[in-house]
Amino acid sequence: MEIFRFRSEHSITNNSLQARVGRFRTAHGEVLTPAFMPVGTQGSVKGVTPAQLTEIEPQIILGNTYHLSLRPGDDLIRSLGGLHRFMAWDGPILTDSGGFQVFSLAPMRKITDEGVSFQSHIDGSKCFLSPERSMEIQKNLSSDIVMALDECPAGRSERLNLEKSVSRTTEWLKRCRNFPLGEHQGLFAINQGGAYLDLRRKHLEDILEIDAKHPFQGFAIGGLSVGEPKEEMNAVLSELVKELPRDRPRYLMGVGAPEDILFGIEQGVDMFDCVLPTREARHGRLLTSIGRINIKNARHRFSEAPLDPNCSCYTCRTFSRAYLHHLFKAGELLGLTLNTIHNLSYTVGLTRAARKALLDKSLPVFAYATRQLWQTEDL
Amino acid sequence: MEIFRFRSEHSITNNSLQARVGRFRTAHGEVLTPAFMPVGTQGSVKGVTPAQLTEIEPQIILGNTYHLSLRPGDDLIRSLGGLHRFMAWDGPILTDSGGFQVFSLAPMRKITDEGVSFQSHIDGSKCFLSPERSMEIQKNLSSDIVMALDECPAGRSERLNLEKSVSRTTEWLKRCRNFPLGEHQGLFAINQGGAYLDLRRKHLEDILEIDAKHPFQGFAIGGLSVGEPKEEMNAVLSELVKELPRDRPRYLMGVGAPEDILFGIEQGVDMFDCVLPTREARHGRLLTSIGRINIKNARHRFSEAPLDPNCSCYTCRTFSRAYLHHLFKAGELLGLTLNTIHNLSYTVGLTRAARKALLDKSLPVFAYATRQLWQTEDL
Repeated sequence: MEIFRFRSEHSITNNSLQARVGRFRTAHGEVLTPAFMPVGTQGSVKGVTPAQLTEIEPQIILGNTYHLSLRPGDDLIRSLGGLHRFMAWDGPILTDSGGFQVFSLAPMRKITDEGVSFQSHIDGSKCFLSPERSMEIQKNLSSDIVMALDECPAGRSERLNLEKSVSRTTEWLKRCRNFPLGEHQGLFAINQGGAYLDLRRKHLEDILEIDAKHPFQGFAIGGLSVGEPKEEMNAVLSELVKELPRDRPRYLMGVGAPEDILFGIEQGVDMFDCVLPTREARHGRLLTSIGRINIKNARHRFSEAPLDPNCSCYTCRTFSRAYLHHLFKAGELLGLTLNTIHNLSYTVGLTRAARKALLDKSLPVFAYATRQLWQTEDL
Repeated sequence: MEIFRFRSEHSITNNSLQARVGRFRTAHGEVLTPAFMPVGTQGSVKGVTPAQLTEIEPQIILGNTYHLSLRPGDDLIRSLGGLHRFMAWDGPILTDSGGFQVFSLAPMRKITDEGVSFQSHIDGSKCFLSPERSMEIQKNLSSDIVMALDECPAGRSERLNLEKSVSRTTEWLKRCRNFPLGEHQGLFAINQGGAYLDLRRKHLEDILEIDAKHPFQGFAIGGLSVGEPKEEMNAVLSELVKELPRDRPRYLMGVGAPEDILFGIEQGVDMFDCVLPTREARHGRLLTSIGRINIKNARHRFSEAPLDPNCSCYTCRTFSRAYLHHLFKAGELLGLTLNTIHNLSYTVGLTRAARKALLDKSLPVFAYATRQLWQTEDL
């Protein structure tokens, strides 16, 4: 669909960089890239209201097909007007396929070419996820971007396993592409193949063959944040991104640590998602412009300083480290919320700042300065 | 101090009513009464940010001396500029004396005329609370209204016990009054005496004797929500309020159920506090204009309706009951926050509506209509 066409505003390519900045439209608004997507697993970005999220200004957020289909159920969400209305979020939403959660959370999995049967981790009931069912759920949720169902092999799989899994993912992709989604919905294909670049290239060829007949609205790279050594992941990512179509958004799945986002942006990735910023926040581990801060640390007990001197989020402009330390020690709910607001602001802000640097043609300087700042505080 | 002078704007007195509406000033702003004070036990009104609290518009909030003195410590809060700055709340704050918590939470209590020794419920360390120490803590917290330290006898105490306790409270009150508080701080005396009206009258005489020499800025009624039958409490309250000085605010401690607030207002009470609205919210029990609602109830699962059709809080104007039901079932943090926003909005709104009704000379109609509405929904 035309509305998903990626418009590149600027790109920079040299020996080590192939970064780009751009935008694409959805029925719920434009997405400026690069963009980090906060994760709203169960119809809520954990710990923050939609009003607080709006102030953080993410371009797009993510919802989980697996969780929402089990509870409260995608039929219920459809009958209440779709996920946007249910969770009171007017901006763009991407839903994942449910595959990653089925393969990592659900007990009693059995995989066939048809799909995956599994037990609900909530009540043990029997469930079945197929490419068609994943599309149906995401159609019921009425998200803007729908992810194709892929088979997600375990962390470092044997090559033979990966080959089988990749070829099944290709077959599933055809079935996803044939499913009649909502008019406003775009479908993203997912590239797999572990740390084997040749396997990923072969998979990409197969994806592009399907794409030639019936185009996808974007391309995702899956299975690159599941335990490989970082050098391997980075090398594969760097090579692979070059070969993705330039006229559609590129999404690196499950990546959200600041240094990985920055590296991804330098390689030309447009979209990221990860629970890391929200989960780390709930454990008092905070991402800042001067490195990671553990707010539980006794040295913050008397500190009048804001959490991050370079951050203008509600948490940083309102409260001291001493107060955040106290809330965490006292087990106050407010601590979880304030930490989450900051970590999301930081991560979304990092992609926003990189976007600006790219437009100003100063990405290398920005990236260097950012990496230097991360070394400031030794924790 | 002049700033605490209670200015009555309207009052109504007849057979069953002795209600009034008024206002008094503090260094952090004027308090319009009747007013419900949300409780911020540990330097945070549980589950909401100061920004969310501001939207709820409480006239004044409450902080807990016992909890804050143990953690993070009143010295620390003083060194960081006082409680207002620490928790980022610019409006008036009342702090309790710490007595109620020592007498209900702390293990290993030993009471003498000097004060109470006890163990911290957090780390078991030895602590001591005396009238002077309570004043010192509240001075360090720099609250606007300081509560005198009283001995809080257990629920339904024997008369002899109560007599001893009341006379000790009078002695402690003199010591509190003699303590040099901050210039902006007002001291409230607390009347005790259980369900014995004659004992309460005697105690009030003693209080007023101290007051004649060195005036208090307000008067509180304690020990009326600790387990007596409601009829007894109501009868004592009704008689006692008439005898409190009219030129100072009257505060009914620990009362926060909607029907009890309404009754209190009808008797001429100006201020209330209670953890009930926030605690009930966290258990999914919601206070509404059409009665209590348990959001866990399956009948809300598909409901598109707002929680309370007559409420304009963020929760009610943004989300469906189905969504609130889902958040509760899924254990999402956001559910606690949204429920808390509503219950506080409802309770603060009840006192605001009663104030308006009083000024419009329509309190009896308002009270009748409110009680009728509470019967609407049978849960």
